[in-house]
Order: sequence, then C-alpha cells, then structure tokens
Amino acid sequence: MKNIHPITDSIISREERELRLGQRGKVLWFTGLSGSGKSTLAIALERQLFDQGYSVIILDGDNIRTGINNNLTFSPDDRIENIRRIAEVAKLFLANGIICIVSFISPTRDMRANAKQIIGPSDFVEVFIDTPIEVCEARDVKGLYKKARAGEIKDFTGVNAPYEIPLQPDVHVHTEDTDIEESMAVLYQQILPRIRV
Amino acid sequence: MKNIHPITDSIISREERELRLGQRGKVLWFTGLSGSGKSTLAIALERQLFDQGYSVIILDGDNIRTGINNNLTFSPDDRIENIRRIAEVAKLFLANGIICIVSFISPTRDMRANAKQIIGPSDFVEVFIDTPIEVCEARDVKGLYKKARAGEIKDFTGVNAPYEIPLQPDVHVHTEDTDIEESMAVLYQQILPRIRV
Repeated sequence: MKNIHPITDSIISREERELRLGQRGKVLWFTGLSGSGKSTLAIALERQLFDQGYSVIILDGDNIRTGINNNLTFSPDDRIENIRRIAEVAKLFLANGIICIVSFISPTRDMRANAKQIIGPSDFVEVFIDTPIEVCEARDVKGLYKKARAGEIKDFTGVNAPYEIPLQPDVHVHTEDTDIEESMAVLYQQILPRIRV
Repeated sequence: MKNIHPITDSIISREERELRLGQRGKVLWFTGLSGSGKSTLAIALERQLFDQGYSVIILDGDNIRTGINNNLTFSPDDRIENIRRIAEVAKLFLANGIICIVSFISPTRDMRANAKQIIGPSDFVEVFIDTPIEVCEARDVKGLYKKARAGEIKDFTGVNAPYEIPLQPDVHVHTEDTDIEESMAVLYQQILPRIRV
C-alpha cells in the first residue's frame, strides 16, 4: 500500500447514498410530554415509511438509555449531554442518508436548539407532539405521573420540571380528540415532501 | 390514541431489516497500528461492498472524534469511554441490519473484549491489519511517529504505549510486501461469507 490518497477519494458521499436509497436523509426530532404519544407515533411512522421502502430508524429511550447513554444520570448536566449524544448519533445516520426518528421529551428550547445546531438546521425537522398535560396524565401509561405527584420522581417534566413548548415547530401534531390514524395521516403528509427525492 | 399496544407490536426487527437489505449486519472491527493501513482498507472495503449493493458505513476518527466523542481526552479513562461509545454506536447500526466498519487503533485486548461484549460475540468480527511497526513508521503518513519520537506526543501506540496484538483475530490481513489490491482480495474473501444471506 504505497499511497493512500487515491483510495481516500473513494469515500462514499451522502449524496451517493441518498441516490442509492431514493430518499433524502432527515432527522425527525419528536418532542412532547411523557404520555403525549411520541413513541406510538414514532413507531407507527417508522413502520409506514419502512413499508414504503424508505430506510428509516428510531432512536429512543429503549436503545439509547440502555446503550450509549447508560452512564448518564438525570442531573441537569447529564440531561444536556444526553441530548448532545443523541444528536451526534442521529447525525451519523443522517450522514449515511438514513431517515432518523428521534423520540425524547427534550423539554427545553436550549436542548432542541443545540440538537438542531449539531445536526444542521436544514436537516433538523422539529415534530411537536402536542397533547395537553391533563390528557397525558389521565393516560399515565407508565404510571410515571402518579409517582411524580407522589414525590417519588424528582424533576418530572410537566409536574415539577418545565416543558417549553416549541414556538415554531416544523410539524405540529395535535393528538387530543383524534385517533391515531388521523394523527398519523397528518404526520405522514407533512413528512413525505421532506424526504422524497 | 386510546391504546399504544397494537402499535408497539409493529416495531421493525433486525431480521426484517436484514431481509429487506439482503444481508446480515455485522461489526467489522479493524485494529492495527497507526499507519498500518486500517483506514485505507476500511474505505476500500466500504466502497467495494457498497458497489455490490450492501448497506455499509464506516465509523472512524473523522466522524467520531469530531462528533460524539469530541468531549473526550486521551486519558486512560477517556480512551476506554471512547471505545465503549464507538461500540454502542456500532451496535445501533447493527440493530438496523447495517454492516458497520469500525477503524480505530483500539490497542488493548481489554478494549476490544469490551467492544465485543457490548456488540455481541457473534456479530463482532475482529479484523487485524497486521503491519510491522517499522513499516508504519517508515510510511508515517501523518507525521505522527516523528512527533512521538521527538516526545511531542505522549502515549503514542507502538512508540511509548503498548499495542497488544490480537491473539485470535477473525480476519488477519498482512499488508507488508503486498499491494492494496492483494490485501483487499484477502479481506473481501473473508468478509463476504459473514455478511451474505
């Protein structure tokens, strides 16, 4: 191996990958309260896009908190580092042309702005899953609101820690008074033009 | 959204993704000295696999040290954390059926054993790019050996920090006295049966 330079020229660009995949890579950054329906909609969207032939993955608590971020706590600094690492991982999928659905509460504007800056504004799609806290708390799928109200969970978003509503989300999904099919239809319709070549 | 359970059932398994992609996901973990030809071969292999229709990506210093690991130093603890995070990121690509080429010196057996444990033994393919240090140092593509000999770089693998040779690498590539085409042929021949369905 006398010379590495001709080989280095053969690095595969994002454009070449997107051409192969027949799509534009994007990071679809879902934000919303616990119980808002983020994961439900993220999983349903992933399935729908996959079935349409798109290359799409999800980053969520299931694969992030147990893996790359398993050495982080819920301290303020670690919450920021949590979101930073998620954004960096999403950026790696993006660089490979893959559509990356990210589903975390990401409660503050600063966190989301930081993620957007890491990923790049033109590739970051903020998807606000907008469900009133009363509805989330009534659902309480994981029993977390009950625990938070009982003081068993500190700094629980919406109960004793703030959730800062996105001021200008790219996609705004209201889930109250609609069923999942309707929410999905809205979501899909707004996402498709952003990923289609 | 009355019930999340039917939706949760539609999570896309690795098997379903691999079926779509027509490949088996693997982590091809390249290890070897600085200047051994890891990156050159990694990039050439990625190109060859991509051109054959495989879904394949590279994790290396270019996209990791500047991104997810940009807050790590070269201290012993941070070197371990460096490799841990790389393994976790590789695992995310693997979970999505993608072939992930990882190219880092990863000098110690412990580091590589840790990566293998995170990724899972059956999905971890250790690829030893075996080039004598004299050859690496004579190439000195980045001028790093010269700096290390001059004492400008501390703990430089092979000069003033150990490189522990893999005892039983899954793939063993000798680059001395061969040109890149020959090394690539050996590499490709040994990788293909592991990723082909």
